[in-house]
Amino acid sequence: MFSAEKYVGRRKQLIEQLSSGIVLLPGNNRVPMNYAGNPYPFRQDSHFLYYFGIDLPDLVGVVDVDSGECYLFGDELSLDDLIWVGEYPALADLAQKSGVSKLFPKVRLENYLATAMQLKRPIHYLPPYRSDRLLQLSEWLSLTPQEVKQQISSDLIGAVVSQRSIKDVDEINEIELTINQITSEMFLTALHLCEPGKRESEIAAAIENIAKAQGSQLAFPSICSVNGHYLHNESYANTLQEGQLLLVDAGCESRLHYATDLTRVFPVAKTFSAQQAEIYQLVLEMQRKALEMIRPGITYLSVHKQACKVMVEGFKALGLMSGDTDEIVEQGAHALFFPHGLGHLLGLDVHDMEDLGEQNTGYDENIKRSEVFGTRFLRYGKALKEGLVLTVEPGIYFIPLLIEQWKKEGKFKQYIHYERLIPYLNFGGIRIEDDIVVTSQGCRVLGNPVPKTIAEIELLKMP
Amino acid sequence: MFSAEKYVGRRKQLIEQLSSGIVLLPGNNRVPMNYAGNPYPFRQDSHFLYYFGIDLPDLVGVVDVDSGECYLFGDELSLDDLIWVGEYPALADLAQKSGVSKLFPKVRLENYLATAMQLKRPIHYLPPYRSDRLLQLSEWLSLTPQEVKQQISSDLIGAVVSQRSIKDVDEINEIELTINQITSEMFLTALHLCEPGKRESEIAAAIENIAKAQGSQLAFPSICSVNGHYLHNESYANTLQEGQLLLVDAGCESRLHYATDLTRVFPVAKTFSAQQAEIYQLVLEMQRKALEMIRPGITYLSVHKQACKVMVEGFKALGLMSGDTDEIVEQGAHALFFPHGLGHLLGLDVHDMEDLGEQNTGYDENIKRSEVFGTRFLRYGKALKEGLVLTVEPGIYFIPLLIEQWKKEGKFKQYIHYERLIPYLNFGGIRIEDDIVVTSQGCRVLGNPVPKTIAEIELLKMP
Repeated sequence: MFSAEKYVGRRKQLIEQLSSGIVLLPGNNRVPMNYAGNPYPFRQDSHFLYYFGIDLPDLVGVVDVDSGECYLFGDELSLDDLIWVGEYPALADLAQKSGVSKLFPKVRLENYLATAMQLKRPIHYLPPYRSDRLLQLSEWLSLTPQEVKQQISSDLIGAVVSQRSIKDVDEINEIELTINQITSEMFLTALHLCEPGKRESEIAAAIENIAKAQGSQLAFPSICSVNGHYLHNESYANTLQEGQLLLVDAGCESRLHYATDLTRVFPVAKTFSAQQAEIYQLVLEMQRKALEMIRPGITYLSVHKQACKVMVEGFKALGLMSGDTDEIVEQGAHALFFPHGLGHLLGLDVHDMEDLGEQNTGYDENIKRSEVFGTRFLRYGKALKEGLVLTVEPGIYFIPLLIEQWKKEGKFKQYIHYERLIPYLNFGGIRIEDDIVVTSQGCRVLGNPVPKTIAEIELLKMP
Repeated sequence: MFSAEKYVGRRKQLIEQLSSGIVLLPGNNRVPMNYAGNPYPFRQDSHFLYYFGIDLPDLVGVVDVDSGECYLFGDELSLDDLIWVGEYPALADLAQKSGVSKLFPKVRLENYLATAMQLKRPIHYLPPYRSDRLLQLSEWLSLTPQEVKQQISSDLIGAVVSQRSIKDVDEINEIELTINQITSEMFLTALHLCEPGKRESEIAAAIENIAKAQGSQLAFPSICSVNGHYLHNESYANTLQEGQLLLVDAGCESRLHYATDLTRVFPVAKTFSAQQAEIYQLVLEMQRKALEMIRPGITYLSVHKQACKVMVEGFKALGLMSGDTDEIVEQGAHALFFPHGLGHLLGLDVHDMEDLGEQNTGYDENIKRSEVFGTRFLRYGKALKEGLVLTVEPGIYFIPLLIEQWKKEGKFKQYIHYERLIPYLNFGGIRIEDDIVVTSQGCRVLGNPVPKTIAEIELLKMP
């Protein structure tokens, strides 16, 4: 846990942003896998981690905006429980570490809330992303599940987003240390295992092994695929073949559950082919351009578009596209090859606060989400501020199904030379992703560099 | 998947056991970890796997008891989806492999159920163990969550238990192959890594790595601990020290999600100490006795008690207990050292069908669950039948907190020589677990033998 002062300070700041009422911040419960006694690994709610820091199930945090008091509702393990689990932290100690002096048994929560409701005090809560939370809120607040969804507090969402978006030095340090101590090794291991005959599942398992051996866990299911052009592909059934590319998009959690999220692409052969190197170099250039532009004040939407323009310029040089670059990007013709956004917020969630809605975290009244295919998938479009932590992850993909579909429709045929794409239909996809923090003057890539240039990768692949 | 005939046959047998109405067998959905877009690894519902075999989320199976028809409700991926995920099995193909000819879009389910409710047809469903299922049932059937829980079909529970309890050759083969191909290697790896200075987390990760590299997954979070006496201990924070014992209780899933579940204990040093060897040998003897007794007709409760008696005899010989063995076991004094049951059903769940209630799976009107501490934790007490697959997992533990508690209370002081337990307070715990099938004459341990005797283990630990 961070210091008690930090949690106290965060709750104080939350209170200052709200006018009245109480804030209900339930922690997560265990979720059954195939029966109640066999739950998934516990993952605490990120908001609860942020404001209370305690990494145990079955707790509820309450912040009284009017009195400034904070409460925790939860039950200590009994001696009977302790016999089975051995050493276990006392809740009272953890509450103290979180700077909360009032710890009550869980059974008192319903009464507490009933009283608040009788007094017609506003009860603020965030959107429940798990069904058990929805059901709990429904019971605690005597609302139907539908009503629970209708009465989510947009004030609270706004307050949390403004607070959690800006990371302090300790938070950045968490991410950075985790990249240096664990994530880098995950990628170096993937690089060394990336050779003909290896199975994707072996490499994915080896990556996870490195995180778990250090007591960490994956921040999300790794993508580890020779079909990097399928963006949501999470299966590991293929065997690597000479000439293919392996795309690895993976990250793990720090002790305090801050996420890392990197992507690298390695050739299965000892070196990149000339075609692969050309596209790889172009993705690297897209990222370089983006990193160069990022600074407070500029919108991430404009950085995204600039990266797209770098791609289009490159495709024009390769003879795959032609036409006016700005026009191509505004209309979204580039999205055939780069159909996703440049990046997203990173923090206690790998897509930080995605549970609160990207509209709330990534856009505002000034920057509206695009409606154009590709650009509309950009998760964060707003003006950048010092202290934001974001991923920068341009990519170029040749998705046969999508190319075929667009070609059939004649979509953007004035820009795209479909007939010249034939040599790329088995190419796959390339994405290069790093995590950055926006600084006062620009940005800084977090962690020690993980091999990224063609020369670095090929050198490490030498026997 | 198994053959279509098998799924058709299983559903036919289900129909034969019920008098009328429809059986609603929803598959599982994805469960959000920290937001909807970052779900836990998908685990299909075991009943759905049993009757339909399709390992994808968001499906609902229906069995019409009166007409004998079976339906699947679910949606094919659209072309837009396929662009992102690449190769994906067509639902229509999978329905055919499951022997179901009627596949409907998910949206038609509510209408179908509404019609059935208008006709006052009984709708049978099993206890929902996940909240999203509970909410779905509540919406589909226009019941409150409380009413959903009240209207669970005990007829359906009974039918499913009687059917799933007895495993056929193919099911046994699944378990056996998985032990031979994956689980054995997990344990040999743990044995080789078990040496001073290694961290529990490294060994736990290495075990999981072996399962995942082969495309399998853990059937439950491994126990990998130098504190084997804490039975529900799932943390991996310790570093192994000379003189300690490492208890590894782990298993993985077959391609079709049948579970394996073994336990072995290895000395961190090259050999067991004399004290460790004595207790280890006694646990082995408890298991040997149990395996010798298991045959159709005998109750598992009586096998459990006999294993307890072997323990008590051994403890008497060691001077740790005295008194009448039968009396000690009937009163539960042995449970200070063996506080859990001898074993449980194994199948598509590691505690097979625990979601249906142990009272329903493990006990009946003839064999009631004991109320004595220790024996009451036996998950399966009934008379054995050919085709049951069970774990046999006796153990001996020295739990300082429990010993202290009983000693203070003077509990069973006529049998237990508390003062002689002092040399054992740092002992830890030993459990030895194998998976067996009840045969016509006795039982058979599943899979090739995994090193179990002291001689075998010490031989493998030699440099």
